[in-house]
Amino acid sequence: MNKNLPQLAELYQNTLLQNVIPFWEQHSVDWDYGGYFSCLDRQGNVYDTDKFIWLQNRQVWMFSVFYNCLEQKEDWLTIARHGAEFLAKHGRDSDGNWYFALNRQGEPLVQPYNVFSDCFAAMAFSKYALASGESWAKEVALQAYHNVLRRQDNPKGKYNKAYPGTRSLKTMAVPMILANLTLEMDWLLSGEELETVLDRTVNEVMNDFLDAETGLLYENVTPDGSHLDCFDGRLINPGHGIEAMWFLMDIAHRRNDTQLINQAVDTILNILDFGWDKEYGGIYYFMDIKGHPPQQLEWNQKLWWVHLETLVALLKGYNLTQRKECWQWFERVHDYSWQHFSDKEYGEWFGYCDRRGEVILNLKGGKWKGCFHVPRALYLCWQELKRGQMFT
Amino acid sequence: MNKNLPQLAELYQNTLLQNVIPFWEQHSVDWDYGGYFSCLDRQGNVYDTDKFIWLQNRQVWMFSVFYNCLEQKEDWLTIARHGAEFLAKHGRDSDGNWYFALNRQGEPLVQPYNVFSDCFAAMAFSKYALASGESWAKEVALQAYHNVLRRQDNPKGKYNKAYPGTRSLKTMAVPMILANLTLEMDWLLSGEELETVLDRTVNEVMNDFLDAETGLLYENVTPDGSHLDCFDGRLINPGHGIEAMWFLMDIAHRRNDTQLINQAVDTILNILDFGWDKEYGGIYYFMDIKGHPPQQLEWNQKLWWVHLETLVALLKGYNLTQRKECWQWFERVHDYSWQHFSDKEYGEWFGYCDRRGEVILNLKGGKWKGCFHVPRALYLCWQELKRGQMFT
Repeated sequence: MNKNLPQLAELYQNTLLQNVIPFWEQHSVDWDYGGYFSCLDRQGNVYDTDKFIWLQNRQVWMFSVFYNCLEQKEDWLTIARHGAEFLAKHGRDSDGNWYFALNRQGEPLVQPYNVFSDCFAAMAFSKYALASGESWAKEVALQAYHNVLRRQDNPKGKYNKAYPGTRSLKTMAVPMILANLTLEMDWLLSGEELETVLDRTVNEVMNDFLDAETGLLYENVTPDGSHLDCFDGRLINPGHGIEAMWFLMDIAHRRNDTQLINQAVDTILNILDFGWDKEYGGIYYFMDIKGHPPQQLEWNQKLWWVHLETLVALLKGYNLTQRKECWQWFERVHDYSWQHFSDKEYGEWFGYCDRRGEVILNLKGGKWKGCFHVPRALYLCWQELKRGQMFT
Repeated sequence: MNKNLPQLAELYQNTLLQNVIPFWEQHSVDWDYGGYFSCLDRQGNVYDTDKFIWLQNRQVWMFSVFYNCLEQKEDWLTIARHGAEFLAKHGRDSDGNWYFALNRQGEPLVQPYNVFSDCFAAMAFSKYALASGESWAKEVALQAYHNVLRRQDNPKGKYNKAYPGTRSLKTMAVPMILANLTLEMDWLLSGEELETVLDRTVNEVMNDFLDAETGLLYENVTPDGSHLDCFDGRLINPGHGIEAMWFLMDIAHRRNDTQLINQAVDTILNILDFGWDKEYGGIYYFMDIKGHPPQQLEWNQKLWWVHLETLVALLKGYNLTQRKECWQWFERVHDYSWQHFSDKEYGEWFGYCDRRGEVILNLKGGKWKGCFHVPRALYLCWQELKRGQMFT
């Protein structure tokens, strides 16, 4: 191991501050109608003006976090406010559920067909309320959070296409996102509510979704945690599993739960052994636990967020356990990610590569990629690398 | 042009009769529970037992067509009946709408969330009724057909996630499938009903979806046929467009409408110029009319059905117009298809290649690929190649 932690920390820091944040500051703010553009080509030109609620909320969250954690720059708070006010005005239906998409002007395009828009709204408004001190934003955050709790057992509501009763599956996405979201909300929740939700999500992920035999996280299991031999039941989403593990390590760290930390690190390493492409490098997007053909045609593509969340998870795992496998994997995923996704020329990172690692979409943002995974991961990796220097 | 039509006709005929039909006869019939397995790996092993209604119905249609058009083999009628009886018993909800998926035993898994299951049911039971002479099957066909007509303006029904009014788009899939389906139903419909539906679908496809400026078919337009600058509004699906053109050529041929035939051939050639991958060969799956990044991560993949429907369209176009561009494109797409999709070793064709033409899913059937495009196209190409010999 040939670690140069200060130099690595600087790389993550500088890329965040000089390459990624400026990209979003310069290109994404819709000063005319409010909110943000997320559909930006390689150079930052807007190629579509629709406003996807996940990404709108995630950008509010991100600029609020910059303001809260990096520096109290008025410009950053202004950008966060610009999105928060647009979303508070246009983002919800008359029942308070968050739409999936709006047009540029803020008119609803896509109904609130799942609960994840509400998740990202709760995150966004929690951190925006902290940044701005505006108490109305707290109310928006708490209302969205309670929507999530209320709808968590039927996250798609009336848009659920599954026939009731024949095949009951629950998705890891719900407890996984609740683990992270609940910590993001900690200053707004009572200690009791917080601990109850955290207990339940940790328990559900590690008992129902983690498979004792393979050490892998399944994406969908029956309500009692057993496996079904069908497409959804065989699905492994390596990036999701690894991201879930760093959410749980955050909880475990807060609780000094060494056992949970070790279990999470073991799981990350298991997923990497299973999900790493031994021929071309990089982590697959979707896999079938039995090696059957997955439904998803994009299964063998390499996505930016999968690799960035893995970097975060490995550094957190390394700092908490000092296990050398974490560092070895970090170096491997770091090299792959910086080689294939970063774009020194125009800022931000590419999102989508084919199996061989060639960029297949000439974009920096779209319907699912916005101002979120890249800056969050760069920020968290920078912090962990700084913290790691204390151990050397 | 170095055409050897008899040899080509023989290739398509022999592959159909000796390689493709045997694959489905041997591997796909679920003799225990009824219906068919469509999830078959390269060798024909069943890797999943769910029953997807599109594919169940398409296989009933296909074996009924073999019986009606190739040879009145009792085995083929038995296989068609095996699916038809399973579907008649399990395929519909209490309102007579066709589910999207059943489990192996026939219990519903996925609700009737769009109208295309009903389309394929109408096709299947029309041709099965013709094969079997069973009058109950006629009723099933007509009921499904009238479901399609009734639901055509809102094909997703209550599962439609679009917020009403903000952005109205209609999809070419509906008139396109009605064009083909209505001809498949011709012996069951009155001349007046038939001609009314055909008039409307031809008119809608050629006036609303065909763009006069580019000569390309748009996948989604406003109800009055104008374009919207959004992801769905910019979408071009070359395979869909080309398939739609051979459906319309069938109508035009029946009506001796030379103008429509020429317009359809022009459109096919325009789409091929636009959709052919100049670097690696093959036809792209999805494209953005303005060259922006499409939403679909699989946009640059090469799919079996796109290429097979193109072969059918080009041969029909060639036989109807004798235009040499049709034959030149046929040779190019023929070479690409046989090189990348066919599998002489185990029967049937691969379905999914990456941009470079490498197979990315080791399957012969799945959720969307069954006993349909390969045998239908081989059969139709064989017939057209035989017919073509009359002109040489």
